[in-house]
Amino acid sequence: MHTILKSNSKEVIIGIDKPFVMIGEKINPTGIKKLGQALVDKNMEYVQYLAKRQVDWGADVLDVNVGHPQIDEAEIIPMVVEAIKSVVDVPLCIDSNEPKILEAGLRVAPGKPLVNSVNGEEKQLASVLPIVKDRGAAVIGLTIGDEGIPATPEGRLAAAGKIIERAVKMGIPIEDIIIDPLVMTVGHNSSAALVTLKTIELIRKEYGVNMSLGASNVSFGLPDRHSVNASLLSLAMQAGATCSITDPIKLGSAIRATDLLLGKDANSMRYLKYFRATEKLREAEAAAKA
Amino acid sequence: MHTILKSNSKEVIIGIDKPFVMIGEKINPTGIKKLGQALVDKNMEYVQYLAKRQVDWGADVLDVNVGHPQIDEAEIIPMVVEAIKSVVDVPLCIDSNEPKILEAGLRVAPGKPLVNSVNGEEKQLASVLPIVKDRGAAVIGLTIGDEGIPATPEGRLAAAGKIIERAVKMGIPIEDIIIDPLVMTVGHNSSAALVTLKTIELIRKEYGVNMSLGASNVSFGLPDRHSVNASLLSLAMQAGATCSITDPIKLGSAIRATDLLLGKDANSMRYLKYFRATEKLREAEAAAKA
Repeated sequence: MHTILKSNSKEVIIGIDKPFVMIGEKINPTGIKKLGQALVDKNMEYVQYLAKRQVDWGADVLDVNVGHPQIDEAEIIPMVVEAIKSVVDVPLCIDSNEPKILEAGLRVAPGKPLVNSVNGEEKQLASVLPIVKDRGAAVIGLTIGDEGIPATPEGRLAAAGKIIERAVKMGIPIEDIIIDPLVMTVGHNSSAALVTLKTIELIRKEYGVNMSLGASNVSFGLPDRHSVNASLLSLAMQAGATCSITDPIKLGSAIRATDLLLGKDANSMRYLKYFRATEKLREAEAAAKA
Repeated sequence: MHTILKSNSKEVIIGIDKPFVMIGEKINPTGIKKLGQALVDKNMEYVQYLAKRQVDWGADVLDVNVGHPQIDEAEIIPMVVEAIKSVVDVPLCIDSNEPKILEAGLRVAPGKPLVNSVNGEEKQLASVLPIVKDRGAAVIGLTIGDEGIPATPEGRLAAAGKIIERAVKMGIPIEDIIIDPLVMTVGHNSSAALVTLKTIELIRKEYGVNMSLGASNVSFGLPDRHSVNASLLSLAMQAGATCSITDPIKLGSAIRATDLLLGKDANSMRYLKYFRATEKLREAEAAAKA
Protein backbone atom coordinates (compact mmCIF):
# COMPACT_ATOMS: atom_id res chain seq x y z
CA MET A 1 0.00 0.00 0.00
CA HIS A 2 1.47 3.34 -1.04
CA THR A 3 0.74 6.73 0.47
CA ILE A 4 1.68 9.35 -2.10
CA LEU A 5 2.42 12.88 -0.89
CA LYS A 6 3.17 15.72 -3.28
CA SER A 7 4.92 19.09 -3.28
CA ASN A 8 4.73 21.44 -6.25
CA SER A 9 6.85 19.20 -8.42
CA LYS A 10 7.85 16.15 -6.38
CA GLU A 11 6.21 12.98 -5.19
CA VAL A 12 7.14 11.12 -2.02
CA ILE A 13 5.97 7.52 -1.80
CA ILE A 14 5.57 5.89 1.59
CA GLY A 15 5.38 2.08 1.55
CA ILE A 16 6.82 -1.07 3.12
CA ASP A 17 8.68 -1.82 -0.12
CA LYS A 18 10.22 1.69 -0.20
CA PRO A 19 13.02 3.37 1.77
CA PHE A 20 11.84 4.78 5.10
CA VAL A 21 10.45 8.32 4.83
CA MET A 22 11.78 11.00 7.19
CA ILE A 23 9.36 13.77 8.13
CA GLY A 24 11.47 16.60 9.60
CA GLU A 25 10.21 17.58 13.06
CA LYS A 26 12.11 20.80 13.69
CA ILE A 27 9.54 23.41 12.58
CA ASN A 28 7.81 23.28 15.94
CA PRO A 29 8.29 25.98 18.57
CA THR A 30 7.80 23.52 21.46
CA GLY A 31 11.20 23.49 23.02
CA ILE A 32 12.83 25.77 20.41
CA LYS A 33 12.61 29.24 21.98
CA LYS A 34 14.32 30.91 19.06
CA LEU A 35 11.65 29.64 16.66
CA GLY A 36 8.85 30.73 19.00
CA GLN A 37 10.26 34.26 19.11
CA ALA A 38 10.75 34.36 15.33
CA LEU A 39 7.11 33.38 14.83
CA VAL A 40 5.91 35.98 17.34
CA ASP A 41 7.94 38.55 15.36
CA LYS A 42 6.62 37.20 12.05
CA ASN A 43 10.21 36.80 10.97
CA MET A 44 10.35 33.91 8.51
CA GLU A 45 14.13 33.67 8.07
CA TYR A 46 14.66 31.17 10.86
CA VAL A 47 11.76 29.02 9.63
CA GLN A 48 13.36 28.98 6.19
CA TYR A 49 16.73 28.07 7.66
CA LEU A 50 15.17 25.12 9.53
CA ALA A 51 13.33 24.03 6.38
CA LYS A 52 16.42 24.11 4.17
CA ARG A 53 18.67 22.50 6.76
CA GLN A 54 16.33 19.56 7.31
CA VAL A 55 15.90 18.94 3.59
CA ASP A 56 19.68 19.14 3.12
CA TRP A 57 20.00 16.47 5.82
CA GLY A 58 17.57 14.14 4.10
CA ALA A 59 14.06 15.09 5.26
CA ASP A 60 11.59 13.90 2.60
CA VAL A 61 8.65 15.82 4.09
CA LEU A 62 8.49 18.69 6.62
CA ASP A 63 6.17 18.85 9.60
CA VAL A 64 4.82 22.37 10.24
CA ASN A 65 3.63 23.18 13.75
CA VAL A 66 3.21 26.76 14.98
CA GLY A 67 1.67 26.08 18.39
CA HIS A 68 2.72 28.83 20.79
CA PRO A 69 0.78 30.72 23.51
CA GLN A 70 1.48 34.16 22.02
CA ILE A 71 0.56 33.27 18.44
CA ASP A 72 -2.69 33.30 16.50
CA GLU A 73 -1.92 30.05 14.75
CA ALA A 74 -4.59 30.32 12.05
CA GLU A 75 -3.19 33.71 11.07
CA ILE A 76 0.48 32.71 11.10
CA ILE A 77 0.41 29.24 9.53
CA PRO A 78 -0.29 30.40 5.94
CA MET A 79 2.63 32.79 6.21
CA VAL A 80 4.90 29.98 7.46
CA VAL A 81 3.78 27.58 4.74
CA GLU A 82 4.38 30.19 2.04
CA ALA A 83 7.83 30.94 3.45
CA ILE A 84 8.75 27.24 3.41
CA LYS A 85 7.36 26.71 -0.11
CA SER A 86 9.56 29.49 -1.39
CA VAL A 87 12.78 27.75 -0.30
CA VAL A 88 12.20 23.99 -0.50
CA ASP A 89 10.22 21.68 -2.76
CA VAL A 90 8.97 18.91 -0.48
CA PRO A 91 5.48 17.88 0.67
CA LEU A 92 4.35 19.37 3.98
CA CYS A 93 2.69 17.86 7.00
CA ILE A 94 0.32 20.35 8.65
CA ASP A 95 0.49 19.72 12.38
CA SER A 96 -2.41 20.76 14.62
CA ASN A 97 -5.59 19.30 16.01
CA GLU A 98 -7.57 22.54 15.62
CA PRO A 99 -9.77 22.39 12.52
CA LYS A 100 -9.43 26.05 11.61
CA ILE A 101 -5.61 25.96 11.88
CA LEU A 102 -5.51 22.83 9.72
CA GLU A 103 -7.76 24.46 7.13
CA ALA A 104 -5.64 27.61 7.06
CA GLY A 105 -2.45 25.59 6.56
CA LEU A 106 -3.88 23.13 4.07
CA ARG A 107 -5.29 25.90 1.89
CA VAL A 108 -1.80 27.12 0.96
CA ALA A 109 0.13 23.85 1.29
CA PRO A 110 1.44 22.64 -2.08
CA GLY A 111 0.40 19.47 -3.90
CA LYS A 112 -0.92 16.75 -1.63
CA PRO A 113 -0.10 17.37 2.03
CA LEU A 114 -0.31 15.23 5.13
CA VAL A 115 -2.34 16.12 8.23
CA ASN A 116 -0.85 15.45 11.66
CA SER A 117 -3.13 14.28 13.23
CA VAL A 118 -6.49 12.85 14.09
CA ASN A 119 -7.17 10.42 16.91
CA GLY A 120 -9.98 7.99 17.61
CA GLU A 121 -12.05 10.29 19.82
CA GLU A 122 -15.51 10.92 18.36
CA LYS A 123 -15.13 14.69 18.50
CA GLN A 124 -11.78 14.61 16.67
CA LEU A 125 -12.95 12.19 14.00
CA ALA A 126 -15.99 14.35 13.28
CA SER A 127 -14.06 17.61 13.06
CA VAL A 128 -10.77 16.61 11.37
CA LEU A 129 -11.68 13.89 8.85
CA PRO A 130 -13.98 16.10 6.72
CA ILE A 131 -11.17 18.62 6.33
CA VAL A 132 -8.76 15.87 5.22
CA LYS A 133 -11.34 14.57 2.76
CA ASP A 134 -12.15 18.01 1.30
CA ARG A 135 -8.48 18.82 0.73
CA GLY A 136 -7.65 15.38 -0.69
CA ALA A 137 -4.89 15.10 1.92
CA ALA A 138 -3.43 12.09 3.72
CA VAL A 139 -3.75 11.85 7.50
CA ILE A 140 -1.91 10.44 10.50
CA GLY A 141 -4.23 8.64 12.93
CA LEU A 142 -3.06 8.25 16.53
CA THR A 143 -4.13 5.05 18.26
CA ILE A 144 -6.03 6.88 20.99
CA GLY A 145 -9.65 6.06 21.76
CA ASP A 146 -12.36 7.80 23.78
CA GLU A 147 -10.82 6.27 26.91
CA GLY A 148 -7.30 7.52 26.16
CA ILE A 149 -4.26 5.52 25.02
CA PRO A 150 -4.94 1.78 25.18
CA ALA A 151 -2.35 -0.08 27.27
CA THR A 152 -2.31 -3.19 25.07
CA PRO A 153 -1.39 -3.80 21.42
CA GLU A 154 -4.88 -5.24 20.87
CA GLY A 155 -6.47 -2.07 22.26
CA ARG A 156 -4.33 0.09 19.95
CA LEU A 157 -5.20 -2.13 17.00
CA ALA A 158 -8.88 -1.53 17.78
CA ALA A 159 -8.32 2.24 17.99
CA ALA A 160 -6.55 2.13 14.60
CA GLY A 161 -9.41 0.08 13.19
CA LYS A 162 -11.97 2.65 14.29
CA ILE A 163 -10.06 5.50 12.61
CA ILE A 164 -9.55 3.53 9.40
CA GLU A 165 -13.18 2.45 9.23
CA ARG A 166 -14.51 5.94 9.83
CA ALA A 167 -12.13 7.57 7.34
CA VAL A 168 -12.84 5.03 4.62
CA LYS A 169 -16.60 5.42 5.14
CA MET A 170 -16.14 9.13 4.59
CA GLY A 171 -14.41 8.47 1.28
CA ILE A 172 -10.76 8.85 2.29
CA PRO A 173 -8.79 6.09 0.51
CA ILE A 174 -7.26 3.61 2.98
CA GLU A 175 -3.81 4.23 1.51
CA ASP A 176 -4.07 7.85 2.66
CA ILE A 177 -4.35 6.83 6.30
CA ILE A 178 -1.08 6.47 8.21
CA ILE A 179 -1.34 5.06 11.72
CA ASP A 180 0.88 6.18 14.61
CA PRO A 181 1.08 3.26 17.08
CA LEU A 182 2.38 5.64 19.81
CA VAL A 183 5.33 5.08 22.04
CA MET A 184 5.60 6.04 25.71
CA THR A 185 8.86 6.42 27.59
CA VAL A 186 10.63 3.21 28.59
CA GLY A 187 11.97 5.19 31.55
CA HIS A 188 8.60 4.75 33.30
CA ASN A 189 7.51 1.41 31.88
CA SER A 190 9.91 -1.27 30.71
CA SER A 191 7.40 -2.79 28.30
CA ALA A 192 6.46 0.51 26.61
CA ALA A 193 8.49 -0.16 23.46
CA LEU A 194 7.41 -3.81 23.26
CA VAL A 195 3.75 -2.70 23.23
CA THR A 196 4.51 -0.32 20.35
CA LEU A 197 6.44 -2.94 18.37
CA LYS A 198 3.70 -5.52 18.84
CA THR A 199 1.09 -2.91 17.79
CA ILE A 200 3.03 -2.28 14.59
CA GLU A 201 3.08 -6.01 13.80
CA LEU A 202 -0.66 -6.38 14.45
CA ILE A 203 -1.61 -3.37 12.32
CA ARG A 204 0.69 -4.43 9.49
CA LYS A 205 -0.92 -7.87 9.44
CA GLU A 206 -4.53 -6.70 9.85
CA TYR A 207 -4.62 -3.57 7.69
CA GLY A 208 -1.29 -3.28 5.85
CA VAL A 209 -1.41 0.52 6.15
CA ASN A 210 1.61 2.74 6.50
CA MET A 211 2.76 3.57 10.02
CA SER A 212 4.60 6.56 11.42
CA LEU A 213 6.50 6.75 14.66
CA GLY A 214 7.33 9.82 16.74
CA ALA A 215 10.41 8.08 18.09
CA SER A 216 11.73 10.58 20.59
CA ASN A 217 9.07 10.11 23.32
CA VAL A 218 10.56 6.72 24.04
CA SER A 219 13.68 8.14 25.67
CA PHE A 220 12.03 10.91 27.67
CA GLY A 221 13.77 11.32 31.03
CA LEU A 222 16.73 9.10 30.07
CA PRO A 223 20.36 10.08 29.40
CA ASP A 224 21.97 9.42 25.99
CA ARG A 225 18.56 9.67 24.32
CA HIS A 226 20.13 9.23 20.91
CA SER A 227 21.06 5.57 21.47
CA VAL A 228 17.52 4.74 22.59
CA ASN A 229 15.84 6.66 19.76
CA ALA A 230 18.09 5.18 17.08
CA SER A 231 17.61 1.62 18.34
CA LEU A 232 13.84 2.08 18.53
CA LEU A 233 13.73 3.28 14.94
CA SER A 234 15.65 0.21 13.78
CA LEU A 235 13.33 -2.10 15.70
CA ALA A 236 10.19 -0.31 14.47
CA MET A 237 11.38 -0.43 10.86
CA GLN A 238 11.92 -4.17 11.17
CA ALA A 239 8.43 -4.55 12.67
CA GLY A 240 6.88 -2.64 9.77
CA ALA A 241 6.86 1.14 10.39
CA THR A 242 7.40 3.10 7.17
CA CYS A 243 7.92 6.74 8.20
CA SER A 244 8.73 8.87 11.22
CA ILE A 245 8.41 12.44 12.38
CA THR A 246 11.96 12.84 13.46
CA ASP A 247 15.19 14.85 13.45
CA PRO A 248 17.02 13.95 10.21
CA ILE A 249 20.26 15.51 11.45
CA LYS A 250 20.42 13.18 14.46
CA LEU A 251 18.71 10.07 13.13
CA GLY A 252 19.30 10.06 9.38
CA SER A 253 22.36 7.79 9.58
CA ALA A 254 20.59 5.15 11.67
CA ILE A 255 17.60 5.21 9.32
CA ARG A 256 19.65 4.93 6.12
CA ALA A 257 21.74 2.15 7.72
CA THR A 258 18.62 0.22 8.69
CA ASP A 259 17.13 0.59 5.20
CA LEU A 260 20.36 -0.89 3.89
CA LEU A 261 20.21 -3.83 6.32
CA LEU A 262 16.55 -4.48 5.52
CA GLY A 263 17.36 -4.87 1.82
CA LYS A 264 15.79 -1.57 0.71
CA ASP A 265 18.92 -0.04 -0.76
CA ALA A 266 20.33 -1.86 -3.78
CA ASN A 267 24.13 -1.54 -3.99
CA SER A 268 24.11 0.77 -0.93
CA MET A 269 23.46 3.69 -3.29
CA ARG A 270 21.27 5.73 -0.94
CA TYR A 271 23.46 4.95 2.06
CA LEU A 272 26.63 6.10 0.30
CA LYS A 273 24.97 9.18 -1.17
CA TYR A 274 23.62 10.14 2.24
CA PHE A 275 27.01 9.66 3.87
CA ARG A 276 28.80 11.83 1.29
CA ALA A 277 26.18 14.58 1.46
CA THR A 278 26.09 14.73 5.26
CA GLU A 279 29.87 14.57 5.54
CA LYS A 280 30.07 17.73 3.45
CA LEU A 281 27.30 19.36 5.48
CA ARG A 282 29.03 18.49 8.73
CA GLU A 283 32.27 20.06 7.47
CA ALA A 284 30.48 23.15 6.15
CA GLU A 285 28.54 23.63 9.38
CA ALA A 286 31.68 23.21 11.48
CA ALA A 287 33.52 25.74 9.28
CA ALA A 288 30.63 28.21 9.56
CA LYS A 289 30.72 27.92 13.34
CA ALA A 290 34.50 28.43 13.55
CA MET B 1 17.92 -22.26 27.27
CA HIS B 2 20.83 -20.90 29.30
CA THR B 3 24.51 -21.11 28.44
CA ILE B 4 26.45 -20.64 31.65
CA LEU B 5 30.07 -19.49 31.44
CA LYS B 6 32.29 -19.11 34.48
CA SER B 7 35.39 -17.25 35.56
CA ASN B 8 37.10 -17.97 38.89
CA SER B 9 34.27 -16.46 40.89
CA LYS B 10 31.63 -15.20 38.49
CA GLU B 11 28.92 -16.71 36.32
CA VAL B 12 27.67 -15.20 33.07
CA ILE B 13 24.31 -16.48 31.86
CA ILE B 14 23.45 -16.21 28.17
CA GLY B 15 19.75 -16.60 27.35
CA ILE B 16 16.85 -15.01 25.45
CA ASP B 17 15.30 -13.94 28.76
CA LYS B 18 18.54 -12.28 29.91
CA PRO B 19 20.32 -9.04 28.96
CA PHE B 20 22.47 -9.40 25.85
CA VAL B 21 26.01 -10.63 26.60
CA MET B 22 28.97 -8.69 25.20
CA ILE B 23 32.11 -10.69 24.40
CA GLY B 24 34.95 -8.19 24.04
CA GLU B 25 36.72 -8.60 20.69
CA LYS B 26 39.82 -6.46 21.17
CA ILE B 27 42.37 -9.06 22.28
CA ASN B 28 43.10 -10.03 18.69
CA PRO B 29 46.23 -8.86 16.85
CA THR B 30 44.44 -8.82 13.47
CA GLY B 31 44.40 -5.15 12.67
CA ILE B 32 45.95 -4.04 15.99
CA LYS B 33 49.67 -3.74 15.21
CA LYS B 34 50.55 -2.63 18.70
CA LEU B 35 49.07 -5.82 20.17
CA GLY B 36 50.88 -7.98 17.59
CA GLN B 37 54.20 -6.42 18.55
CA ALA B 38 53.49 -6.75 22.27
CA LEU B 39 52.77 -10.46 21.80
CA VAL B 40 55.94 -10.95 19.75
CA ASP B 41 57.83 -9.26 22.59
CA LYS B 42 55.97 -11.35 25.19
CA ASN B 43 55.03 -8.10 26.87
CA MET B 44 51.71 -8.64 28.61
CA GLU B 45 51.02 -5.09 29.75
CA TYR B 46 49.11 -4.08 26.64
CA VAL B 47 47.04 -7.27 26.78
CA GLN B 48 46.15 -6.46 30.37
CA TYR B 49 45.25 -2.90 29.45
CA LEU B 50 42.89 -4.17 26.71
CA ALA B 51 41.37 -6.69 29.11
CA LYS B 52 40.72 -4.16 31.86
CA ARG B 53 39.44 -1.49 29.50
CA GLN B 54 36.92 -3.79 27.85
CA VAL B 55 35.60 -5.05 31.19
CA ASP B 56 35.33 -1.45 32.43
CA TRP B 57 33.24 -0.69 29.35
CA GLY B 58 30.87 -3.54 30.00
CA ALA B 59 32.35 -6.67 28.40
CA ASP B 60 30.90 -9.72 30.17
CA VAL B 61 33.35 -12.16 28.57
CA LEU B 62 36.68 -11.63 26.74
CA ASP B 63 37.65 -13.23 23.45
CA VAL B 64 41.34 -14.23 23.34
CA ASN B 65 42.95 -14.58 19.93
CA VAL B 66 46.72 -14.57 19.44
CA GLY B 67 46.89 -15.35 15.72
CA HIS B 68 49.98 -13.67 14.25
CA PRO B 69 52.53 -14.87 11.66
CA GLN B 70 55.53 -14.35 14.00
CA ILE B 71 54.02 -16.06 17.01
CA ASP B 72 53.96 -19.66 18.22
CA GLU B 73 50.37 -19.45 19.34
CA ALA B 74 50.34 -22.62 21.42
CA GLU B 75 53.31 -21.29 23.38
CA ILE B 76 52.00 -17.77 23.89
CA ILE B 77 48.30 -18.35 24.61
CA PRO B 78 48.77 -19.75 28.16
CA MET B 79 50.88 -16.72 29.02
CA VAL B 80 48.19 -14.38 27.66
CA VAL B 81 45.40 -16.19 29.50
CA GLU B 82 47.34 -16.06 32.78
CA ALA B 83 48.03 -12.36 32.29
CA ILE B 84 44.33 -11.64 31.71
CA LYS B 85 43.24 -13.79 34.68
CA SER B 86 45.48 -11.80 36.97
CA VAL B 87 43.70 -8.50 36.19
CA VAL B 88 40.04 -9.31 35.44
CA ASP B 89 37.53 -11.85 36.72
CA VAL B 90 35.41 -12.69 33.66
CA PRO B 91 34.97 -15.90 31.64
CA LEU B 92 37.19 -16.22 28.58
CA CYS B 93 36.49 -17.24 25.02
CA ILE B 94 39.48 -19.07 23.51
CA ASP B 95 39.61 -18.12 19.84
CA SER B 96 41.35 -20.42 17.35
CA ASN B 97 40.50 -23.28 15.05
CA GLU B 98 43.75 -25.11 15.73
CA PRO B 99 43.21 -27.97 18.21
CA LYS B 100 46.55 -27.64 19.93
CA ILE B 101 46.15 -23.88 20.44
CA LEU B 102 42.67 -24.40 21.84
CA GLU B 103 43.96 -27.08 24.21
CA ALA B 104 46.79 -24.87 25.39
CA GLY B 105 44.43 -21.98 26.09
CA LEU B 106 41.65 -24.04 27.65
CA ARG B 107 44.06 -25.72 30.03
CA VAL B 108 44.73 -22.47 31.90
CA ALA B 109 41.41 -20.67 31.27
CA PRO B 110 39.43 -20.20 34.49
CA GLY B 111 36.06 -21.79 35.33
CA LYS B 112 34.01 -22.70 32.30
CA PRO B 113 35.28 -21.08 29.10
CA LEU B 114 33.83 -20.71 25.62
CA VAL B 115 35.51 -21.98 22.45
CA ASN B 116 35.41 -19.81 19.33
CA SER B 117 34.84 -21.72 17.11
CA VAL B 118 33.92 -24.91 15.31
CA ASN B 119 32.18 -25.06 11.94
CA GLY B 120 30.21 -27.77 10.19
CA GLU B 121 33.10 -29.19 8.15
CA GLU B 122 33.76 -32.83 8.98
CA LYS B 123 37.41 -32.25 9.76
CA GLN B 124 36.65 -29.41 12.18
CA LEU B 125 33.86 -31.26 13.94
CA ALA B 126 36.12 -34.26 14.48
CA SER B 127 39.06 -32.27 15.79
CA VAL B 128 37.42 -29.48 17.86
CA LEU B 129 34.36 -31.05 19.49
CA PRO B 130 36.29 -33.66 21.53
CA ILE B 131 38.41 -30.87 23.02
CA VAL B 132 35.29 -28.91 23.98
CA LYS B 133 33.75 -32.01 25.52
CA ASP B 134 36.89 -32.94 27.50
CA ARG B 135 37.21 -29.47 28.96
CA GLY B 136 33.48 -29.13 29.74
CA ALA B 137 33.49 -25.87 27.75
CA ALA B 138 30.78 -24.23 25.65
CA VAL B 139 31.35 -23.72 21.93
CA ILE B 140 30.41 -21.34 19.14
CA GLY B 141 29.36 -23.16 15.96
CA LEU B 142 29.60 -21.26 12.68
CA THR B 143 26.93 -22.07 10.10
CA ILE B 144 29.43 -23.26 7.51
CA GLY B 145 29.14 -26.65 5.86
CA ASP B 146 31.51 -28.76 3.77
CA GLU B 147 30.48 -26.64 0.78
CA GLY B 148 31.22 -23.32 2.48
CA ILE B 149 28.76 -20.71 3.73
CA PRO B 150 25.20 -21.51 2.63
CA ALA B 151 23.56 -18.63 0.74
CA THR B 152 20.10 -19.23 2.18
CA PRO B 153 18.68 -19.14 5.72
CA GLU B 154 17.48 -22.74 5.22
CA GLY B 155 21.01 -23.82 4.27
CA ARG B 156 22.46 -22.15 7.36
CA LEU B 157 19.78 -23.75 9.53
CA ALA B 158 20.86 -27.13 8.17
CA ALA B 159 24.53 -26.34 8.91
CA ALA B 160 23.56 -25.36 12.48
CA GLY B 161 21.56 -28.58 12.81
CA LYS B 162 24.53 -30.68 11.79
CA ILE B 163 26.79 -29.07 14.40
CA ILE B 164 24.17 -29.36 17.13
CA GLU B 165 23.43 -32.99 16.33
CA ARG B 166 27.09 -33.98 16.24
CA ALA B 167 27.93 -32.13 19.46
CA VAL B 168 24.97 -33.54 21.37
CA LYS B 169 25.83 -37.06 20.17
CA MET B 170 29.29 -36.55 21.62
CA GLY B 171 27.80 -35.64 24.99
CA ILE B 172 28.03 -31.84 24.83
CA PRO B 173 24.79 -30.45 26.33
CA ILE B 174 22.73 -28.54 23.75
CA GLU B 175 22.72 -25.45 25.98
CA ASP B 176 26.50 -25.29 25.63
CA ILE B 177 26.27 -24.81 21.87
CA ILE B 178 25.99 -21.22 20.63
CA ILE B 179 25.34 -20.79 16.93
CA ASP B 180 26.82 -17.93 14.86
CA PRO B 181 24.45 -17.34 11.89
CA LEU B 182 27.20 -15.37 10.08
CA VAL B 183 26.82 -12.04 8.40
CA MET B 184 28.44 -10.93 5.17
CA THR B 185 28.89 -7.31 4.11
CA VAL B 186 25.78 -5.54 2.82
CA GLY B 187 28.17 -3.49 0.70
CA HIS B 188 28.43 -6.40 -1.73
CA ASN B 189 25.01 -7.95 -1.33
CA SER B 190 21.92 -6.00 -0.30
CA SER B 191 20.20 -9.05 1.16
CA ALA B 192 23.17 -10.17 3.29
CA ALA B 193 21.69 -8.92 6.57
CA LEU B 194 18.20 -10.19 5.75
CA VAL B 195 19.63 -13.70 5.28
CA THR B 196 21.28 -13.47 8.70
CA LEU B 197 18.15 -12.15 10.42
CA LYS B 198 16.00 -14.85 8.86
CA THR B 199 18.57 -17.48 9.88
CA ILE B 200 18.35 -16.25 13.48
CA GLU B 201 14.55 -16.56 13.43
CA LEU B 202 14.68 -20.08 11.98
CA ILE B 203 17.28 -21.33 14.47
CA ARG B 204 15.45 -19.75 17.41
CA LYS B 205 12.25 -21.51 16.37
CA GLU B 206 13.80 -24.87 15.49
CA TYR B 207 16.43 -25.28 18.23
CA GLY B 208 16.03 -22.43 20.73
CA VAL B 209 19.80 -22.31 21.24
CA ASN B 210 21.76 -19.15 21.99
CA MET B 211 23.17 -17.23 19.06
CA SER B 212 26.19 -14.98 18.73
CA LEU B 213 26.84 -12.41 16.07
CA GLY B 214 30.18 -10.99 14.92
CA ALA B 215 28.44 -7.79 13.87
CA SER B 216 31.25 -5.84 12.29
CA ASN B 217 31.60 -7.86 9.06
CA VAL B 218 28.30 -6.43 7.90
CA SER B 219 29.73 -2.96 7.30
CA PHE B 220 33.00 -3.98 5.66
CA GLY B 221 33.91 -1.53 2.90
CA LEU B 222 31.27 1.02 3.93
CA PRO B 223 31.74 4.45 5.51
CA ASP B 224 30.25 5.26 8.97
CA ARG B 225 30.48 1.59 9.91
CA HIS B 226 29.23 2.35 13.39
CA SER B 227 25.68 3.19 12.25
CA VAL B 228 25.44 -0.04 10.29
CA ASN B 229 26.90 -2.21 13.07
CA ALA B 230 24.69 -0.67 15.76
CA SER B 231 21.52 -1.05 13.67
CA LEU B 232 22.38 -4.65 12.84
CA LEU B 233 22.83 -5.49 16.51
CA SER B 234 19.41 -4.02 17.34
CA LEU B 235 17.78 -5.98 14.53
CA ALA B 236 19.57 -9.21 15.46
CA MET B 237 18.62 -8.84 19.13
CA GLN B 238 14.99 -8.43 18.12
CA ALA B 239 15.24 -11.52 15.91
CA GLY B 240 16.68 -13.58 18.77
CA ALA B 241 20.48 -13.27 19.00
CA THR B 242 21.69 -13.36 22.60
CA CYS B 243 25.38 -12.44 22.52
CA SER B 244 27.99 -10.89 20.27
CA ILE B 245 31.74 -10.76 19.86
CA THR B 246 32.02 -7.03 19.64
CA ASP B 247 33.66 -3.79 20.74
CA PRO B 248 31.97 -2.78 24.01
CA ILE B 249 33.42 0.74 23.81
CA LYS B 250 31.74 1.42 20.48
CA LEU B 251 28.60 -0.68 20.72
CA GLY B 252 27.79 -0.91 24.43
CA SER B 253 25.32 2.00 24.35
CA ALA B 254 23.33 0.60 21.43
CA ILE B 255 23.21 -2.83 23.08
CA ARG B 256 22.09 -1.55 26.49
CA ALA B 257 19.50 0.70 24.77
CA THR B 258 18.12 -2.24 22.79
CA ASP B 259 17.90 -4.42 25.91
CA LEU B 260 15.89 -1.63 27.50
CA LEU B 261 13.54 -1.40 24.51
CA LEU B 262 13.10 -5.17 24.38
CA GLY B 263 11.89 -5.20 28.00
CA LYS B 264 15.02 -6.80 29.45
CA ASP B 265 15.93 -4.00 31.84
CA ALA B 266 13.39 -3.37 34.61
CA ASN B 267 13.31 0.31 35.64
CA SER B 268 16.18 1.06 33.21
CA MET B 269 18.61 0.08 35.97
CA ARG B 270 21.28 -1.44 33.72
CA TYR B 271 20.93 1.30 31.13
CA LEU B 272 21.38 4.07 33.72
CA LYS B 273 24.24 2.27 35.45
CA TYR B 274 26.01 1.75 32.12
CA PHE B 275 25.54 5.39 31.15
CA ARG B 276 26.97 6.68 34.44
CA ALA B 277 29.94 4.31 34.35
CA THR B 278 30.86 5.05 30.74
CA GLU B 279 30.40 8.79 31.19
CA LYS B 280 33.04 8.68 33.92
CA LEU B 281 35.30 6.51 31.77
CA ARG B 282 34.94 8.86 28.83
CA GLU B 283 35.93 11.81 31.01
CA ALA B 284 38.84 9.94 32.58
CA GLU B 285 40.15 8.75 29.21
CA ALA B 286 39.86 12.26 27.74
CA ALA B 287 41.71 13.69 30.76
CA ALA B 288 44.45 11.07 30.45
CA LYS B 289 44.91 11.95 26.78
CA ALA B 290 45.12 15.71 27.49
